[in-house]
Amino acid sequence: MTKSYSLQDIADYLGAELRGDTACQITGLNTLEHGQTGDLVFLANKAYERYLSTTQASAVLLEPRYAEAFAGNALVLDNPYVAYARISSWFVHSTPPEGGVHPSAVIADSASLADGVSIGPHVSIGERVKIGAGVNIGPGVSIGNDSTIGSGSRLYSNVSVYHGVSIGCDTVIHSNTVIGADGFGFANDGGEWIKIHQLGSVEIGNNVEIGACTTIDRGALDNTVIEDGVILDNHVQIAHNVRIGENTAMAAYAGISGSTKIGKNCVFAAHAGAVGHITVGDGVVAMARCTISKSTAKAGSYSSGLLMDETRQWRKNAVRFGQLDDMARRLKQLEKDSQA
Amino acid sequence: MTKSYSLQDIADYLGAELRGDTACQITGLNTLEHGQTGDLVFLANKAYERYLSTTQASAVLLEPRYAEAFAGNALVLDNPYVAYARISSWFVHSTPPEGGVHPSAVIADSASLADGVSIGPHVSIGERVKIGAGVNIGPGVSIGNDSTIGSGSRLYSNVSVYHGVSIGCDTVIHSNTVIGADGFGFANDGGEWIKIHQLGSVEIGNNVEIGACTTIDRGALDNTVIEDGVILDNHVQIAHNVRIGENTAMAAYAGISGSTKIGKNCVFAAHAGAVGHITVGDGVVAMARCTISKSTAKAGSYSSGLLMDETRQWRKNAVRFGQLDDMARRLKQLEKDSQA
Amino acid sequence: MTKSYSLQDIADYLGAELRGDTACQITGLNTLEHGQTGDLVFLANKAYERYLSTTQASAVLLEPRYAEAFAGNALVLDNPYVAYARISSWFVHSTPPEGGVHPSAVIADSASLADGVSIGPHVSIGERVKIGAGVNIGPGVSIGNDSTIGSGSRLYSNVSVYHGVSIGCDTVIHSNTVIGADGFGFANDGGEWIKIHQLGSVEIGNNVEIGACTTIDRGALDNTVIEDGVILDNHVQIAHNVRIGENTAMAAYAGISGSTKIGKNCVFAAHAGAVGHITVGDGVVAMARCTISKSTAKAGSYSSGLLMDETRQWRKNAVRFGQLDDMARRLKQLEKDSQA
Repeated sequence: MTKSYSLQDIADYLGAELRGDTACQITGLNTLEHGQTGDLVFLANKAYERYLSTTQASAVLLEPRYAEAFAGNALVLDNPYVAYARISSWFVHSTPPEGGVHPSAVIADSASLADGVSIGPHVSIGERVKIGAGVNIGPGVSIGNDSTIGSGSRLYSNVSVYHGVSIGCDTVIHSNTVIGADGFGFANDGGEWIKIHQLGSVEIGNNVEIGACTTIDRGALDNTVIEDGVILDNHVQIAHNVRIGENTAMAAYAGISGSTKIGKNCVFAAHAGAVGHITVGDGVVAMARCTISKSTAKAGSYSSGLLMDETRQWRKNAVRFGQLDDMARRLKQLEKDSQA
Repeated sequence: MTKSYSLQDIADYLGAELRGDTACQITGLNTLEHGQTGDLVFLANKAYERYLSTTQASAVLLEPRYAEAFAGNALVLDNPYVAYARISSWFVHSTPPEGGVHPSAVIADSASLADGVSIGPHVSIGERVKIGAGVNIGPGVSIGNDSTIGSGSRLYSNVSVYHGVSIGCDTVIHSNTVIGADGFGFANDGGEWIKIHQLGSVEIGNNVEIGACTTIDRGALDNTVIEDGVILDNHVQIAHNVRIGENTAMAAYAGISGSTKIGKNCVFAAHAGAVGHITVGDGVVAMARCTISKSTAKAGSYSSGLLMDETRQWRKNAVRFGQLDDMARRLKQLEKDSQA
Repeated sequence: MTKSYSLQDIADYLGAELRGDTACQITGLNTLEHGQTGDLVFLANKAYERYLSTTQASAVLLEPRYAEAFAGNALVLDNPYVAYARISSWFVHSTPPEGGVHPSAVIADSASLADGVSIGPHVSIGERVKIGAGVNIGPGVSIGNDSTIGSGSRLYSNVSVYHGVSIGCDTVIHSNTVIGADGFGFANDGGEWIKIHQLGSVEIGNNVEIGACTTIDRGALDNTVIEDGVILDNHVQIAHNVRIGENTAMAAYAGISGSTKIGKNCVFAAHAGAVGHITVGDGVVAMARCTISKSTAKAGSYSSGLLMDETRQWRKNAVRFGQLDDMARRLKQLEKDSQA
């Protein structure tokens, strides 16, 4: 089932200036390098400009500065990468599941399902759960008592949602992710750990996307909160009572410890994290493997860690790290001596 | 369904000295800062002492040294944080699942279920599995042949337990965690990896708590062992033939490599780990991102890694790290020269 | 049900020279240290040679150089560890699931199942899925539309496979792993993240083994590819459009960012990773926590990170790291002064 659209229709949707054949039919998206007849491609990175003259694609999304020199069909606009993202939904191959509730799903009588929901096989939905219009629940998903899922949201297979969780509208949660498990709260009583029952829950906003095998724990007393527009990759860990501000992005293995507040429009790269009980301002960027270790109001990029090296060479330097304080003292002594 | 308890009942349970209104009704727990009428709150950290004079809470758990100066209702005891943990179970909102076996569960005829078990929808239980009294198995859980679950334990939705696994009593396993998958054992035969079938299993003790999306692999020949009272957060990895000693705690992404023995009362912070085939003594603390890289008998705190810095400043220093051995040699030469 | 084999049969299978009692019966595998009557053990590491004279095992796999001095039953060959791996499959205790499709499985009419498949309880199989001969699908697995699973492969419980994924023959995927979730692709439009729909898929080769709670994302335009013979541990993250070359091995928490190509026979240790859009050659070894941060053609071992130290001592050095660029400049000045 190939989808085909005229270049004119695409230009209209994107608000792009069309140069060339308005009737040209587009059947897929591709990269500038690999584009073939029928493909719409994009030039979003100067490094790929060299493919512009040789691309076999039927049309190119590009900025005005490249348009003059390009003889083929072009959609001209300011941000080709955003345009590519926006048009990508037109080319989704997979057919959405049929509406309706699969007969194997187990749904409590007190749960309410709005119009147009799709509930897959082997789903479990608890007491008083509210499922909004058009929500799509994949196979094997479990939703605990008193949770709510806003309209237009999608949960892929084998997601686990605990009780009392609130998920907004048009939010996507990928497979095997867990929302609302107990936060890791224990008090140490002479060596033995006494569990602190986690009485809060989780609130997730609208237009959030959460990857696979990610965990968002319920709060100890208050709720853990994920604001609108947040995007989380796979294997992310959000501990209890954390708040993640609007449109913040976190890559794989990013982990935020308990009670920390992260601002809006932050970016956490892979393996980055933040310690507990701190406040991180808007626009903070934590580079890969950086731990934000104290409250940080100033926007900008933060790092820790080391650059890669060949192991043989690295080892010599790593051993010297253990002598660094001693080296600093000796350096100071030499400076003192030389000034004597 | 609000729960309400008299302050006297709570004092009796905790063994606390009650100062104030014994009939005062408590309907919830909260922080000193946010407590309202009906709330019991706690003062466990000197940093929050400033809220003591203004709290709206109905009663406060506190130490004797703060009690004199506090005019409100107080429960006085030595460790308010432990007391808060102990009383937290009284305020759990969620209703436990009804007992009984959901008709959609698939249970082998040779499995045995003790009294008072609760088995959710879409559960699979293999041959000769033994489920102890009062065990609670959530939706979508799979338990392999010959595994046993001790009385009072709870497995949340979509947990996977392989064959031959032994889980103790009063142990909690959160959603989508995997117990008993094959250890990562392969022998390299001229480039090709030959699988070492993992013939051991996993033994988990009593009063263990295991987070979500955590993995504990089965042993190659002997068993992987988690002793009583261990607490593991989300995304933890315990490799084959590891042993984790009693009451050891591990935060998210802590990973222990194969055949390593970890002592009792250890703490592994987020992203910490240990290499394989070593022995780590009781009371070792591995700070965030620290790899315990050799056998370590001495209790105490171990670290590696770097402090965060602004990326621009960090990069200058990170480049210098690659010159550290050279710097050390030059420093030594200068010292030699200056003594000449 | 104990399995028992004659030493002669084992010698024939492994192509080993048998010294001693050909009729000796072997009922299990064990380590040289712990072997008992009935056990076959192996000497693969010189550190364990001291147990050779005292082992209680019935026979030992060992190299020719150790055979002369050993009086017991011996299987002599060049690589005892590979031999142990190869023979380990003979001693698997668990019984394979019976063939057939469990009546609770939900399988689309358009799906095709070859001979000898085993489909567990609560499985969901989508439209036009093709399942090869002898495939074993565990409880709660979900397979999306148009995916294919090659003959002899095994998927353990609660694995999620999205639509359009291709999995080869004799490949093993452990529980709660997710194949084909959306890659983490978004374009930033003035603060808001616009989703790039992920139109590619995932291709996994033959004889691949994938651990538990691991994620392999579908490609944005092209496919993400895992070549034959790759072995991935638990909690691994393979981002969209990555290619992993034949026989490459990755330990827990290894993460490869988008569009990066990893060569053959590479090894990524625990918590290692690679940034996006680079090419890593054959035979590259990334030690624990090392980020391969640029294209690297040269085989060999790469590291970053620091050695562990006691926290008190570490802190002094970590603070000095922040002064390293300054120290380097001062050192250079001293050198200049001393030559004046």
